[in-house]
Amino acid sequence: MTAPLFETVCFVGIGHINSSLARAIRQEGLARRLVTLEISDQARATALELGIVDAAFAEAAEAIPCADLVVIGTPVGAIEAVGQAIGAHLAPGAIVTDVGSVKLGVIRDLMPFIPDGVHFVPGHPIAGTEFSGPESGLAELFRGRWHILTPLPGGDEQATAKVAELWGRVGAQVEIMDPSHHDKVLAITSHLPHLIAYTIVGTASDLEEHLAQEVIKFSASGFRDFTRIAASDPVMWRDIFLNNKEAVLEVIQRFTEDLTALQRAIRWGEGEVLEDRFRKTRAIRRAIIDARQA
Amino acid sequence: MTAPLFETVCFVGIGHINSSLARAIRQEGLARRLVTLEISDQARATALELGIVDAAFAEAAEAIPCADLVVIGTPVGAIEAVGQAIGAHLAPGAIVTDVGSVKLGVIRDLMPFIPDGVHFVPGHPIAGTEFSGPESGLAELFRGRWHILTPLPGGDEQATAKVAELWGRVGAQVEIMDPSHHDKVLAITSHLPHLIAYTIVGTASDLEEHLAQEVIKFSASGFRDFTRIAASDPVMWRDIFLNNKEAVLEVIQRFTEDLTALQRAIRWGEGEVLEDRFRKTRAIRRAIIDARQA
Repeated sequence: MTAPLFETVCFVGIGHINSSLARAIRQEGLARRLVTLEISDQARATALELGIVDAAFAEAAEAIPCADLVVIGTPVGAIEAVGQAIGAHLAPGAIVTDVGSVKLGVIRDLMPFIPDGVHFVPGHPIAGTEFSGPESGLAELFRGRWHILTPLPGGDEQATAKVAELWGRVGAQVEIMDPSHHDKVLAITSHLPHLIAYTIVGTASDLEEHLAQEVIKFSASGFRDFTRIAASDPVMWRDIFLNNKEAVLEVIQRFTEDLTALQRAIRWGEGEVLEDRFRKTRAIRRAIIDARQA
Repeated sequence: MTAPLFETVCFVGIGHINSSLARAIRQEGLARRLVTLEISDQARATALELGIVDAAFAEAAEAIPCADLVVIGTPVGAIEAVGQAIGAHLAPGAIVTDVGSVKLGVIRDLMPFIPDGVHFVPGHPIAGTEFSGPESGLAELFRGRWHILTPLPGGDEQATAKVAELWGRVGAQVEIMDPSHHDKVLAITSHLPHLIAYTIVGTASDLEEHLAQEVIKFSASGFRDFTRIAASDPVMWRDIFLNNKEAVLEVIQRFTEDLTALQRAIRWGEGEVLEDRFRKTRAIRRAIIDARQA
């Protein structure tokens, strides 16, 4: 067995992603000690009970100073408050990373609190389920999935390499990307699909009561595929939309134009427009299956 | 073993649904002989090769006269042509049913060709995958799923009961519904979700080439859930939208209003509007899981 990569990893927030990472780090022997800084009494208790971490703290002064790696896994709207809480307690030479679904907003909110000699390596694992909380974590969650790192210009290369090694050893493939490009790509692959799913499930839930019951009963006809992602954490997603506003508004606009074109084709009975469009999308599904991301 | 329900079942079109039904009927011993009327040479050859049917015909005059049950499983846009082809060959007392995803349009297009003494019982199984063709059929496809029948006013009750028994014996639960109500319910549970999925996958495929590649690579973040249903048969779906125009246009309108409201909340940073909306949709997912349709 090789030496652990880190002495003490502190997980700020021990929800779905961070508790999955903690389990994977434990399983692979990548750190000597795992602790969490978590404001929820219940989440701290659960994380300790399930043995996900060795110690759980409510105060940054207790959780942060010993950590040579800090992984922030809170909703992205809480990043500024996290920075304020942990900044002064970060040990010299420590590495800070995160798992937030937007990168420009996280960098903007966190960087003012990162002291000289501490290295921030922003990251985002392309993995997760619709479940929340420490009990929902899975050690295998990152296996075969992508992990995107968006290192800062002039950032410490060794720190980036070490974070990349960590994710590689829990089974992910690491991709390096510019943060602004990340936010554009994720706006289309993740943020828009979630918004659309939330919208359509909301539209259905606003129907008259008897019709809403039938929507549930007959959901196997397409609708249920949307409900899984519309069951994702509401606060996490609120924060994502508020923190990737420009990119999300841009893709909503494109989507709405495309939907309006199909709506018009339906109204005017333009079958060939519909069929052409539907043929193209089959090819995309095939490409995803070929890329083994299905 | 009980006596078969039918002597000869003729499947008009031997695609995903009809080939699944044929397999299930064979497995349960519900008919003595299975034949297909199918215009595609390749589909006829595959259906015979896989033993899905005992005989395959390209001409209605050969396929239809001996059948005491005819199951139409073509795209709904082909129903009128099917009616024209089979009407004169239907045996007195025969039962005709279908598996189309819209019911008013099918009734409108088929009824003029149904002779006196032949009983048409419109139906729609709430089951299916994104795959097409006779090779994609699954005998278990209907197990635990709903089958909706929309019998005509004044229609033969024994014929309806016999079709209901058939679907019950291949594992489905039968629900009786008014055709116009069916089309409204399915517009929201099935037609809108498919249109949205086709749209979002189309929007992504129109991106600049390098961005489109990344959408595939990082599709696990939400997008891929949409690509499965956007891989459904293009002709089948073109016909559904053209034949359930009013109900589909109505739900697109509701959906667009709801999306616009969320878009506005994002633009103006109204976090509480987003969070409220996202909380409600979680409850719908739970109801679907409780109804065992997940």
